[in-house]
Amino acid sequence: MTRKAPTLEDVAREAGVSRATVSRVVNGIRNVDPAIRETVREAIARSGYTPNRAARSLVTRRAGTVALVVSGAGDDTGGEQNEFAARALADPFFGRVVSGVVGFLRPRSMHPVLMFAESEDARQQVLAYLRQGSADGALVFSTHAEDPLPGLLAAESLPCVLFARPARPAPVTYVDLDHREGGRLAAEHLLARGCRRAATIAGPLDLPAAQDRLSGFQDTMARHGHPYVPIAEGGFTLDSGASAMTRLLAEHPDTDGVFAANDLMAQGVCQALRASGRRVPQDVAVVGFDDSSAALACLPPLTTVRQPMEEMAAAMARLLQEHIEGKRTEPTSVIFAPELVRRESA
Amino acid sequence: MTRKAPTLEDVAREAGVSRATVSRVVNGIRNVDPAIRETVREAIARSGYTPNRAARSLVTRRAGTVALVVSGAGDDTGGEQNEFAARALADPFFGRVVSGVVGFLRPRSMHPVLMFAESEDARQQVLAYLRQGSADGALVFSTHAEDPLPGLLAAESLPCVLFARPARPAPVTYVDLDHREGGRLAAEHLLARGCRRAATIAGPLDLPAAQDRLSGFQDTMARHGHPYVPIAEGGFTLDSGASAMTRLLAEHPDTDGVFAANDLMAQGVCQALRASGRRVPQDVAVVGFDDSSAALACLPPLTTVRQPMEEMAAAMARLLQEHIEGKRTEPTSVIFAPELVRRESA
Repeated sequence: MTRKAPTLEDVAREAGVSRATVSRVVNGIRNVDPAIRETVREAIARSGYTPNRAARSLVTRRAGTVALVVSGAGDDTGGEQNEFAARALADPFFGRVVSGVVGFLRPRSMHPVLMFAESEDARQQVLAYLRQGSADGALVFSTHAEDPLPGLLAAESLPCVLFARPARPAPVTYVDLDHREGGRLAAEHLLARGCRRAATIAGPLDLPAAQDRLSGFQDTMARHGHPYVPIAEGGFTLDSGASAMTRLLAEHPDTDGVFAANDLMAQGVCQALRASGRRVPQDVAVVGFDDSSAALACLPPLTTVRQPMEEMAAAMARLLQEHIEGKRTEPTSVIFAPELVRRESA
Repeated sequence: MTRKAPTLEDVAREAGVSRATVSRVVNGIRNVDPAIRETVREAIARSGYTPNRAARSLVTRRAGTVALVVSGAGDDTGGEQNEFAARALADPFFGRVVSGVVGFLRPRSMHPVLMFAESEDARQQVLAYLRQGSADGALVFSTHAEDPLPGLLAAESLPCVLFARPARPAPVTYVDLDHREGGRLAAEHLLARGCRRAATIAGPLDLPAAQDRLSGFQDTMARHGHPYVPIAEGGFTLDSGASAMTRLLAEHPDTDGVFAANDLMAQGVCQALRASGRRVPQDVAVVGFDDSSAALACLPPLTTVRQPMEEMAAAMARLLQEHIEGKRTEPTSVIFAPELVRRESA
């Protein structure tokens, strides 16, 4: 009772069109007349033809997908997985990343597979997925300095591109921002406004990006005769920004300017300042970092240091494609320049 | 000079372990001793073995991935694609959706492929991806009442589950919230607080969810002797909520309570009220909808109608799996109950 599976040719005969036309419809290629598309679709349905990308993948050894991995450093067995994913995606900067990646991949008929790697189990799943060829390579967004994933990917020579220089050195390609320059822009802006007692809310200081934003800010302040800048460390979340600001105000009630190392913390800073009866920017000027949607949602809208996330994410996808296609074999790095965006908070 | 490609058996021999152990390492299955895992990894590297999921897919006819599609109604040729993706992902509700989907899929070694379908080209790409078996089915989040995708998926009998009842009826499975009940909860809460001149900021009224939230609110108000509720329509964005509130205040300056049909609009409402010199909740109480991260980012934190997004998204993934595995052949619907979350805004 076995019957040979219907082929592309069977469908073409059934529809009365060429094999190439059937192929175009099946592959979703533009510029097929809608009426012909409909005829082909009906012929596919009647014949029971099921085109299978797996067969093609066997020949090309390409999946046509790349993994978009948000990774952490946990070594538990995955209990907190949903919470990690929810927290990562709640950061408004993520939307801009995905939009940049999709903008590059889609015209090439490639699509991102979303994966999370915050535990040893999850990391092994990601590595297995790449080894099996289910994805051709990985774009990695690490949220933790101790993240072992970049090193593991490098050790197996799996094609990957990181967002930001890894805290643990590894021979992998990455795209990054000149964070020190971003810290400098924030300092120059607060000084130009007349702030004389500026403080900063830093990000987790084991992350190179957080260190660099801080040192760029401090060094610029020092060059202008301000040797001491009060610092409170936050966790890149709104709540951590608010409580860091409350701690700062307790010790430095005369603070007149704040540089927060991301927009979410800056939003929390504005809430804490308002709760303490201070006006932004009249009493305290606030500068954020990222220019994420949080910058606009903030009251008042944030003056912030913009990361060109979409361009950075697209550059990651482009570099990954070069690695996948073997056009690039050695690790490289591409560093983007930040830009100050002026709104109402400073 | 051709050489037979190394097999799983070759790796097992090289590593001195069983074929099953190699398979477990390759597939990233838990509970393999780290030392053995390392030995197998080295043997894989030496032998040049490349496991290929495509070969397995040919046998199982399963890709092990599902498409997570955000769709619209455009029929352009894709010029605005990045902007659409960025806007969709900027909605904080998206993070909760992905977290629910990933929470269900990951323990099953399945992963979501992120796709956008806001133009005819993009829709054809999604359909082709499913026809080719690159994904086994689709979870669809439609942002527009005129979205043709649900109908196209149904016409080709491609496995899919929608978030929310489609505005254009189509024989497809969906998961939804009892939005009318959500509107009722908001109305009862404002009335219980003593609001007597409540108004509402509705979502786009061609969307069933927006209609139902509105009618649930209006009907409850009417049952309590408030036959007339001023309405302004917004677009589910922060800005549209702020400008709708400004319009409402111009005509109804004595408004003492507002039900906004999502949290982002409620955030805009709070900004507009503050800009007009009114205090929330003392002068005007505000209730949002969704309980997204915007509810906590809002100043003051929002009292809101919670959608159990994670549970709804996980239910979508479960229903899709049942369709893919053929355990479910007829369309069905699952409706979740909303819940009022009390914070400071009302």
